[in-house]
Amino acid sequence: MTGSSLFVLGGARSGKSRYAQARAEMLGGRHHFVATAEAFDDEMHERIARHQADRDARWQTVEAPRDLPAVLDALNAPDAVVLVDCLTLWLSNLLLADADPGLAEGELCRAIKQFSGQIILVSNEVGLGIVPANALARRFGDAAGRLNQAVAATAAEVVLLTAGLPLTLKPRAIGP
Amino acid sequence: MTGSSLFVLGGARSGKSRYAQARAEMLGGRHHFVATAEAFDDEMHERIARHQADRDARWQTVEAPRDLPAVLDALNAPDAVVLVDCLTLWLSNLLLADADPGLAEGELCRAIKQFSGQIILVSNEVGLGIVPANALARRFGDAAGRLNQAVAATAAEVVLLTAGLPLTLKPRAIGP
Amino acid sequence: MTGSSLFVLGGARSGKSRYAQARAEMLGGRHHFVATAEAFDDEMHERIARHQADRDARWQTVEAPRDLPAVLDALNAPDAVVLVDCLTLWLSNLLLADADPGLAEGELCRAIKQFSGQIILVSNEVGLGIVPANALARRFGDAAGRLNQAVAATAAEVVLLTAGLPLTLKPRAIGP
Repeated sequence: MTGSSLFVLGGARSGKSRYAQARAEMLGGRHHFVATAEAFDDEMHERIARHQADRDARWQTVEAPRDLPAVLDALNAPDAVVLVDCLTLWLSNLLLADADPGLAEGELCRAIKQFSGQIILVSNEVGLGIVPANALARRFGDAAGRLNQAVAATAAEVVLLTAGLPLTLKPRAIGP
Repeated sequence: MTGSSLFVLGGARSGKSRYAQARAEMLGGRHHFVATAEAFDDEMHERIARHQADRDARWQTVEAPRDLPAVLDALNAPDAVVLVDCLTLWLSNLLLADADPGLAEGELCRAIKQFSGQIILVSNEVGLGIVPANALARRFGDAAGRLNQAVAATAAEVVLLTAGLPLTLKPRAIGP
Repeated sequence: MTGSSLFVLGGARSGKSRYAQARAEMLGGRHHFVATAEAFDDEMHERIARHQADRDARWQTVEAPRDLPAVLDALNAPDAVVLVDCLTLWLSNLLLADADPGLAEGELCRAIKQFSGQIILVSNEVGLGIVPANALARRFGDAAGRLNQAVAATAAEVVLLTAGLPLTLKPRAIGP
């Protein structure tokens, strides 16, 4: 059995997390939720708690605010169903820690390719608004766009969510 | 005769209003334009006047800056063709008036489901840029995204406009 | 031989420039890169240099920060393959120079229609985020949206890039 990968892109409040979870729950196996969020304030605590309450008991939660590729390597198994939510927060944590986003991106894509189970990754599309005036937000937007391109090139299937509705950007190949 | 509903999503200056109007004018019946805008300043006055000048005499204009579900109930008739432009301004008016967006969203979806004529609703997609730094804009973006998801789930057909070109997110079902 | 036109829309870091260049390099003819960027600061110098390094020796670079329609007229030839990157910077330069964007847009569309070679134009989609608080950014967003609509209506084929993946908004007609 070989692994498969799905990349779910979408804007803020696009329904991408719910769609990704529903896709994951259609798959048989051991379900792992990989959370990249770090709770710095009350708003974030509330968001994390709301998301955890949405998942049923079949899910094991693992936190990976920065060492995501190593966590994926540790979970690598043919019967694993892994949902990573989301790459944008992971990137944001890396930039705050002054890590090299290009290096992290390469490591993440390697881990996705080597994954022998089913992996679903969620990320924010952030490049379709007015370019922000401040340089830090621009640098974040550039890094997020590059990361999304790299993961989209690696994943077997890519879907864009808008208002809860999926649009296929890269269809899963059907093969022998 | 049963009602039908079309939800037209798009960014700023995406051509969504013009597309929605053209779709409405392909339908026979009594045409009602439901305007949700409130003119607070000269820029908004100018936008509203420009939009009104774009519509011909077949259209009756009704204003509904806050009580949109009640206005739709009052217009409910099998021969009605109703164009609501736009939900984002309606939501913005509700938030400024400290109304509960979740309650309003439920009322709106109920009114859409009960509508016996043809209804077309326009809304802005605002979630695909960099997440704004200020909490009020984030709260607005979250509410707008939730509203768009609820209306998209309710409508029979959903279309996304980009640079004046429509992309079908949810195709109208063909049935007996 | 009649001309053809492709319009490549996408967000920041969506892979639109790379896609447009790859499409251009699939075409035979004399390749002209029309750069609309003006380097005001180090960040912009770096971006321009990075883009030039990505192109091989077949490309002739022409700069057209403001007089784009005239440059296209001068390059007009049946064997020309012209890549314009990008319209958003051109518009930004025009607005900074207090030029009339509506007039410039009309001139650009006329030049595209009269072009007898192959022309590919790149532009940013900027209307899908939260509407900015400041009036200048709103005015820029409005002008960018109108320009994108006009060029999309003129071009024979329109593609939207997201995370490096193309989505066809307007398919090229197949004809006799």
